[in-house]
Amino acid sequence: MSDETKDLSRRGFIGAGGAALLGGMVFGALPLEGKDAAGPAAGALPKKWDETYDVVVVGTGFAGLAAAIEARLKGASVLVIEKMPVYGGNSIINGGDFAAAGNSFQKEAGVQDSPELMLKDMLKAGSNLNHPALARLVAERSNEALEWCRTYIGAKFTRLNFHGGHSVKRSVQTYNQSGSGLVNPLLDKATSLGVKVVLRTKMTRLVTGKEGRIVGLEVRTGYKWPDEASGTPSFIKARRAVVLAAGGFSQNVALRQIHDPRLTPKFESTNHPGATGEAILAACSAGAMDVQMDWIQLGPWTSPDEPGFGHGPQVCERIVGYGLMVDPANGKRFFKETGNRKERADAIIALGHPVIIVGDSYAIGKQVVPKVLGKAMEVGVVKKFSTLEALAAEYGVPVQPFLDQVARWNGFVEKNKDADFDCKLFPDSKPTVTAPFYAMRLWPRVHHTMGGLVVNAEAQVIGFDMKPVKGLYAAGEITGGVHGAVRLGSVAMSDCVVNGRIAGMNAGGEKAWS
Amino acid sequence: MSDETKDLSRRGFIGAGGAALLGGMVFGALPLEGKDAAGPAAGALPKKWDETYDVVVVGTGFAGLAAAIEARLKGASVLVIEKMPVYGGNSIINGGDFAAAGNSFQKEAGVQDSPELMLKDMLKAGSNLNHPALARLVAERSNEALEWCRTYIGAKFTRLNFHGGHSVKRSVQTYNQSGSGLVNPLLDKATSLGVKVVLRTKMTRLVTGKEGRIVGLEVRTGYKWPDEASGTPSFIKARRAVVLAAGGFSQNVALRQIHDPRLTPKFESTNHPGATGEAILAACSAGAMDVQMDWIQLGPWTSPDEPGFGHGPQVCERIVGYGLMVDPANGKRFFKETGNRKERADAIIALGHPVIIVGDSYAIGKQVVPKVLGKAMEVGVVKKFSTLEALAAEYGVPVQPFLDQVARWNGFVEKNKDADFDCKLFPDSKPTVTAPFYAMRLWPRVHHTMGGLVVNAEAQVIGFDMKPVKGLYAAGEITGGVHGAVRLGSVAMSDCVVNGRIAGMNAGGEKAWS
Repeated sequence: MSDETKDLSRRGFIGAGGAALLGGMVFGALPLEGKDAAGPAAGALPKKWDETYDVVVVGTGFAGLAAAIEARLKGASVLVIEKMPVYGGNSIINGGDFAAAGNSFQKEAGVQDSPELMLKDMLKAGSNLNHPALARLVAERSNEALEWCRTYIGAKFTRLNFHGGHSVKRSVQTYNQSGSGLVNPLLDKATSLGVKVVLRTKMTRLVTGKEGRIVGLEVRTGYKWPDEASGTPSFIKARRAVVLAAGGFSQNVALRQIHDPRLTPKFESTNHPGATGEAILAACSAGAMDVQMDWIQLGPWTSPDEPGFGHGPQVCERIVGYGLMVDPANGKRFFKETGNRKERADAIIALGHPVIIVGDSYAIGKQVVPKVLGKAMEVGVVKKFSTLEALAAEYGVPVQPFLDQVARWNGFVEKNKDADFDCKLFPDSKPTVTAPFYAMRLWPRVHHTMGGLVVNAEAQVIGFDMKPVKGLYAAGEITGGVHGAVRLGSVAMSDCVVNGRIAGMNAGGEKAWS
Repeated sequence: MSDETKDLSRRGFIGAGGAALLGGMVFGALPLEGKDAAGPAAGALPKKWDETYDVVVVGTGFAGLAAAIEARLKGASVLVIEKMPVYGGNSIINGGDFAAAGNSFQKEAGVQDSPELMLKDMLKAGSNLNHPALARLVAERSNEALEWCRTYIGAKFTRLNFHGGHSVKRSVQTYNQSGSGLVNPLLDKATSLGVKVVLRTKMTRLVTGKEGRIVGLEVRTGYKWPDEASGTPSFIKARRAVVLAAGGFSQNVALRQIHDPRLTPKFESTNHPGATGEAILAACSAGAMDVQMDWIQLGPWTSPDEPGFGHGPQVCERIVGYGLMVDPANGKRFFKETGNRKERADAIIALGHPVIIVGDSYAIGKQVVPKVLGKAMEVGVVKKFSTLEALAAEYGVPVQPFLDQVARWNGFVEKNKDADFDCKLFPDSKPTVTAPFYAMRLWPRVHHTMGGLVVNAEAQVIGFDMKPVKGLYAAGEITGGVHGAVRLGSVAMSDCVVNGRIAGMNAGGEKAWS
């Protein structure tokens, strides 16, 4: 692959119409549709297998590539398939932060941490819906996984960051502040070990053999996303096991709405457009059990005025607690600005329309890196105003109620106590009085699907018969249970590498069925 | 059946060890276990069918019997199977309250109501996770369903009740304050129409035919709950359709813990012991999609000092807001006493041990019917004390902190404003000062599973391919989506009768496949 492809960062790449478009397209052409579709009972063996590998991995993100490497190191022949025309899935557009308890950056900075503390943070964020053994596994092996990425894979990590919900600074970031800083070295390592990686190859069905064992999969090679009729059907035998690492379903509107009916096409997603979850459905059709699919995380920091993840979140998240968030319909605050992701997103959704966040020059100057602000203003997501009246006019906010609300907020800031919503105010928060003023519209986007396939601590997929589905492993966002109700920022990388490696080792170590 | 059997009310019948016991037993012998088990792909047709009906209904609660009657009225031959040695499931131990918007009792009492208001209440309780079309269906047809029960089925309803979370008095109760007041007339009607009902017959598997159509089921006849090896395998052909109305999984500890890991064997259930959900799993193994299985409702009003639903809840629920709830470990309050079911249960679970609720003679005398109090004291769940010190000694509460807390609470009551937890205090609440004092220990029990099979408004079960599973219908607690995050009290009956009837009509109206 070219360096250009390798360095591709898709943050901001996703068009605004993506989610709505997919809702219709994907469900017009699901894996099991067509006259030959006959439900899971019909998953008969093909007349012949077109290709044979020991282990077949579905997905080219952190989890899939980590699994492929470990399976290969067990002596297995390994194929990795990717339905999109580019590899890396959401991993390659991720911010490159890896939570690792007790990592060397923490030690250098004098930060006290432990797997127990990370576990505690994960369980608190997850409302204790996390499968405890899975959460513990990620916390306990997070630093080992980080070190594996650094020393064996050769990924460069350069700084220690803080993420909301963590008790301490725990997240180590790639040199290029992007998941590509890990995806690319993983891909290099995998291919250097002899793993075969093919793009535009979509799994349409798992093939079940005797006693419910997964023996391979049906794919479409030369698949041109999102044309479900494209490509050529083909059967790939997996002699040892299949590993599913195909990500979540944030971009699948119809499936989202089954699990959380509020998440209509009004909600776009920060995810890459292929995050549509057909692999989860295909696995369930083959007997795998799903769990906690209704815990779908929205980012409250995205703006309808730019596509994808965008540049606004880095402004919004820095000024919460320094500026105020108001409902443009009445000019009033409606929730504490420093509430967590879920609380704020729920509050905005309940209003039913975008809200605005406002900061003055003091807040912006103190909290936002000039380059970030410049970019956000350049794309037009953050706007600057010489007066609060002009700001109100721009967003159609009733002027006097808005000015009254700012005055009320300023009173709270002076007393360092929000009497209305108990927003956390920082010691250096100041009243919003210094022109120019900045504002940005906010409307949540779907960011992560916590639910997915049930797995055990060996990364085996559990079926509706409550037993492992033979020959089937899974890791990463396609699984459920690690994060419970809410995934903390930067734990996705830890989860994917820890469990991807386990899945790969166990899949590679399976006894061949033929 | 004998009148004795018919009048059986199983409220309070379930032994304390039931849940823990079931956890082990049920999952030692799941439907798909054994050397012939081969996952859903193996669901081949039997060599011969032992019996044939047009429609086979699984479950003898409100939903199953309503479905059987409507299917029979469509001209279908109908078999209803029940795995337990008694019919009625949870329906027969339910309190007999039926929420119906705009019912005649409301009109007589001058209560203004509408389906829109009932829908609003359901969506609010359900945190808008309800499938809107399903919730609307129940609200809009609730009164029609009630009238059908009264006029066509002949069930007697005699009083109008209020239930928490409803905007108005909306719940009409059976003459005997038990679900048996509806189950028995439904059963009489069904058998008089020629529906066959058999007990001790457990579905172990759905049988899938061509193109994924459900064509019948495998059962064990003469099944002796909970011995999974008991009974004789048998195949029943369903020429038109199968209707699943087998209830939820509150008593299935292993399955509960997959979806909400907090719900260990420490939590018993108010449900009948057979509420173990194998029918949900069997349906999913046959391609049906499940939804919102992690929304499991606990009643915060049950006591570890009596089994099942018990007598305590009727004391507890009447004195919240009049008396205080404390953590015996430190004598302090920990949550608002008038929080909703979920909030209170979550708060008690977070403490990790039973709490106590305390009321004085004023609160008890004003709020609790003497007969109810007498029964609760007779079984020992509510205890009486001449002093607060004696009460503290009984439950091992540190005395002085407890007395301080009661004094603090009394101060809030006097000001009619709880400064600690914002508990709703009623205009006639009075300080807890009048001996004798009463107390009861509280520990939540699993009460209802909101999640289940995905259905559409025609009661068709939806598969993982997002399309209806041909020949398969479902209604009642086995389904998910109607109630969203929280089911309101008394809407279970409305849901079961409305959707049971729809399932029966549509199943009975299917074209026979053979």
